[in-house]
Amino acid sequence: MKLRQLGEDRLLRQLLPSLPIGKGVLVPAGDDCAVVAAPAGGDLLLLKTDCVVEKIHFGRETDPGLVGWKAMMRPLSDFAAMSGVPRFALITLIVPSRTTRIWVNKLYRGLTRAAGKFGVAIVGGETSSTVGPAAISVSISGSVERDRMVSRNGGKKGDDLFVTGRLGGSIRGKHLRFIPRIAESRWLTQHFSIHAMMDLSDGLGADLPRLARASNVGFEIQKTSLPRNPGATLEQALSDGEDYELLFAISPHQRERLERAWARKFRSLPLTRIGRLNRKSTIENRKLGSGYLHFK
Amino acid sequence: MKLRQLGEDRLLRQLLPSLPIGKGVLVPAGDDCAVVAAPAGGDLLLLKTDCVVEKIHFGRETDPGLVGWKAMMRPLSDFAAMSGVPRFALITLIVPSRTTRIWVNKLYRGLTRAAGKFGVAIVGGETSSTVGPAAISVSISGSVERDRMVSRNGGKKGDDLFVTGRLGGSIRGKHLRFIPRIAESRWLTQHFSIHAMMDLSDGLGADLPRLARASNVGFEIQKTSLPRNPGATLEQALSDGEDYELLFAISPHQRERLERAWARKFRSLPLTRIGRLNRKSTIENRKLGSGYLHFK
Repeated sequence: MKLRQLGEDRLLRQLLPSLPIGKGVLVPAGDDCAVVAAPAGGDLLLLKTDCVVEKIHFGRETDPGLVGWKAMMRPLSDFAAMSGVPRFALITLIVPSRTTRIWVNKLYRGLTRAAGKFGVAIVGGETSSTVGPAAISVSISGSVERDRMVSRNGGKKGDDLFVTGRLGGSIRGKHLRFIPRIAESRWLTQHFSIHAMMDLSDGLGADLPRLARASNVGFEIQKTSLPRNPGATLEQALSDGEDYELLFAISPHQRERLERAWARKFRSLPLTRIGRLNRKSTIENRKLGSGYLHFK
Repeated sequence: MKLRQLGEDRLLRQLLPSLPIGKGVLVPAGDDCAVVAAPAGGDLLLLKTDCVVEKIHFGRETDPGLVGWKAMMRPLSDFAAMSGVPRFALITLIVPSRTTRIWVNKLYRGLTRAAGKFGVAIVGGETSSTVGPAAISVSISGSVERDRMVSRNGGKKGDDLFVTGRLGGSIRGKHLRFIPRIAESRWLTQHFSIHAMMDLSDGLGADLPRLARASNVGFEIQKTSLPRNPGATLEQALSDGEDYELLFAISPHQRERLERAWARKFRSLPLTRIGRLNRKSTIENRKLGSGYLHFK
């Protein structure tokens, strides 16, 4: 059955009962707004939106379950970047009316599975038809303790730079199946003072200069020390987008304790020191590849 | 200049400084997530997302300032429906790379002007290119006092049904210039006990049955009493979408006081009793026009 025969009311009514109603949800999807519990006293509210678009982020033939997974995990990776706890998701679904119900159901299974992995409740959504390619936008709200929030702008010269996992070659499959580093990020801010952090979505070569610029410092990296995915070249580790790993800055005095504790806690995920922040130097910036830039 | 030459970083850097930074915004657009103050103690968090899509909700030739206005005001109308106070907006912008910077700037002026009218801060956004028509998704978060939140499901049999403003014919211009009934909605819950409320976006004929169904009651309306926009037929008042007026249910004991106080407060905006809720009767439901249904 195609969506044009189903109608929006019936589509939503079919999808909604299968969505798990999370803790703190007072009025779930189906009313004009979703009504949820506010963050606990003193905590900050975190907000993020992101989208995936057919022919840009996924293909017509991509498994819709993986499309849903990716659409949900992308903004969750931004929560990891700030050490936030994601809670509630809103879905905007823009699809051609020829789209089949099976495709939409599989998409929602992917969205729900990804949300469930981090205890996120899907509390609302909106659907629209389009004459163009499909697009799925996901907005997440959540919270973070005031003293555990990490932004991009707290890096200091002399800080060590670390990345989680391995970089490059995400297009060969990881970009549809990655797991945002929320557990790792929450663990980091529980045990260490992280000066600045972000997630790598446009490639280290594009993202590291952003962190340095926000912190008003320069950087130097040992390119040969970059942790690379199997088969990824150095250039790909620098320039490929969609790594969804964490990049963070921390005092060098913490290095030994961090590396030891990390190895005990996250046995299968490498943590690599790739360089350090220094006084502002545009020379090093220019040497870095450009990463993936949208619209280019 | 086209977006493909500009690049996402420079586009965002150009747009962001012009966005007013609202009260309660700790980390504005530009970091991984926006960080904002949580609702005051005890208040509930309200969340809503909506979108407008080229060739569905607006045309290639539509003034981009009005597209931005509409994209922002649609989800704000859902806040009116629940008597919520909108606070923060996230924008997802999906546009072809041939889009001009002028078009995007005008769009953002419309978004900003609409947000500013209700004290809403634009705190984040995401842009993506597409090979299809443009789409703009807006997510709003805000708050409501526990004892002033109104959903669709509190209507009781015997309640009077009221609508604000006039219905029908929105396509002739109102759909691009409407003002969500937030001031009216906040005033209503400050002075009266509103049992159920919603905003009319798909036409009274489609929306009233939703309120009745959610409240588990039936309804009867006097079709001849429907307040119509100049030139709108009875059928259009029932079936045209995008009225963005309020429909609400209130005890008939409140009618006289409500009508008198409303006329004093909102001189230029009519308030009309259009019927009442009754015991469940599917006959009346069937008599109503179907309103605007997406995908049909």
